[in-house]
Amino acid sequence: MKLASLKYGRDGKLVVVSKDLTRYCAADNIAPTLQAALDDWENCAPKLEALYRDVEHQAVPCERFHEREAESPLPRAYQWADGSAYINHVELVRKARDAEVPESFYHDPLMYQGGSDDFLAPREDIPLADTSWGCDMEGEIACITDDVPMGVSKDDAAGHIKLLMLVNDVSLRGLIPGELAKGFGFFQSKPASAFSPVAITPDELGDAWKDSVIQLPLKLDYNGEPFGRAEVGQDATFSLADLVAHAAKTRNLGAGCIIGSGTISNKGADGGPGKPVSEGGAGYSCIAEIRMIETIYDGEAKTRFMQPGDTVRVWMDDAEGHSIFGAIEQKVVEP
Amino acid sequence: MKLASLKYGRDGKLVVVSKDLTRYCAADNIAPTLQAALDDWENCAPKLEALYRDVEHQAVPCERFHEREAESPLPRAYQWADGSAYINHVELVRKARDAEVPESFYHDPLMYQGGSDDFLAPREDIPLADTSWGCDMEGEIACITDDVPMGVSKDDAAGHIKLLMLVNDVSLRGLIPGELAKGFGFFQSKPASAFSPVAITPDELGDAWKDSVIQLPLKLDYNGEPFGRAEVGQDATFSLADLVAHAAKTRNLGAGCIIGSGTISNKGADGGPGKPVSEGGAGYSCIAEIRMIETIYDGEAKTRFMQPGDTVRVWMDDAEGHSIFGAIEQKVVEP
Repeated sequence: MKLASLKYGRDGKLVVVSKDLTRYCAADNIAPTLQAALDDWENCAPKLEALYRDVEHQAVPCERFHEREAESPLPRAYQWADGSAYINHVELVRKARDAEVPESFYHDPLMYQGGSDDFLAPREDIPLADTSWGCDMEGEIACITDDVPMGVSKDDAAGHIKLLMLVNDVSLRGLIPGELAKGFGFFQSKPASAFSPVAITPDELGDAWKDSVIQLPLKLDYNGEPFGRAEVGQDATFSLADLVAHAAKTRNLGAGCIIGSGTISNKGADGGPGKPVSEGGAGYSCIAEIRMIETIYDGEAKTRFMQPGDTVRVWMDDAEGHSIFGAIEQKVVEP
Repeated sequence: MKLASLKYGRDGKLVVVSKDLTRYCAADNIAPTLQAALDDWENCAPKLEALYRDVEHQAVPCERFHEREAESPLPRAYQWADGSAYINHVELVRKARDAEVPESFYHDPLMYQGGSDDFLAPREDIPLADTSWGCDMEGEIACITDDVPMGVSKDDAAGHIKLLMLVNDVSLRGLIPGELAKGFGFFQSKPASAFSPVAITPDELGDAWKDSVIQLPLKLDYNGEPFGRAEVGQDATFSLADLVAHAAKTRNLGAGCIIGSGTISNKGADGGPGKPVSEGGAGYSCIAEIRMIETIYDGEAKTRFMQPGDTVRVWMDDAEGHSIFGAIEQKVVEP
């Protein structure tokens, strides 16, 4: 099924959306918000699934669904933790500065704890107070879990993945080196992220959901041009289930916990750094990667980070070319 | 006023507690939960204050307040970020390994983003699956804010501090070096924290609330013995308002955001590392500090980290010796 949160109050109003994203039916008689549904998922999910079937069969009155009227599916959440499942991204960053990737990175996921109290809506502007902060987009996948017990196995973790979304994990690259040097990880360098207008249950993907990894390309346009077409199912060192299990090693995860994949990043066909979309490659899901590749090949980065007026669009089509999650569409603005 | 969340559902039931912590009156006719009150603070706070006056004047029927029946004031929150305002703590850690404290640490606060989806209750056991993880307590102060706009000044940040609590920020010292080496900050090394049974408005402290710093000692007993009596108002490089402004530099903070002070830590009377309580010093608010001091003086740490059965008690008395927030009392257990 497909769910969205229409703009209403702090937490939105839960609606069930048709598979083709054209219609919705209010679901607030089942649960007022998506968080409330996740808090009682075992009870609510079957009712929401039934309503979804009715929406698909046009057996209930529906309204026109406009992606621009949606909040991020969880407008705020109790947890947002972002992994780094695509080690190619890390390899590129390190290669640009001649550093090795520690062997442990291939079996022990990188993960940072993000801020979750104030997400941007899928069509909300990205406020940027200072262009020297080096604003970047990061196209990613995220899952939402129900309650996950501490110490969950990877196998069991897969069953706790209840919903999937796309993410634009906004990053302030100019603030990252200083923060990482302090040793406590990202904070100011990771401002509010935005999620796709629609969250879906994994079964919506059919065969394109395999071992907790989506097997479709993530599409990202930058300023209206194709920028990223990375295959999510390729070069994933860790699955979303791996990341959920990592997050739960020493603590329970509460219902509505969001775990992200990190920037989707493919190696080139030759095993080296990939090529831009314009040169037939899979492109990049963030600006930092193309800057790294420019640095590797040309000695310096030429593509600048985002400035006010720049736009990013992140979406995913199914095999028939239909948008699955709706699109994140954001513009950078001065606050 | 003083507020608590009695155990009920995921988010507790909001009650107003008498100043002496002996009685409570349900406040769920004003707001069902503390988060709901914070979401509409301007409207709810005056009503809660009025009820608090009635509780104090015994003008409303009250029930007996038992600290053990309280959840952490926010049993889960949309944000928990912990600063490191007491640079003495950092100086000690670095001194033990002959490293300098970077000059920037004195004007740019350290802060990590913590997990907030599943806090422990004030009297809840600390589950520890593996003693090699090096379980430690950290006695701290935390504030809860209302909505804080991005880029807030330090002066304005002070006005956004609506409530204060005590914290036991549980840390797994054995997992910290590996996680910090990965560069993404703490994650598995910072499991669920616990907060005091009662949250208070800053005016409850009278003159002991000065420039967004509490001017009273934080009391911490370890296995029933006095372990920490650090003066919160001493050696605070940053105030809670400084930390709130730091957290809000690149993003809005949502109502109910919790910002912590980091481990309270005093220098000794001679400016050097402090002494244990048993030797007339202010002691320590975590085990890591006494281990650092043992390392500095004896070449090796002797005090071991927490094992199943070990207990910690964190509380704060006013000038008359009355408990202000109630006590965090926790025991380490095998899960």
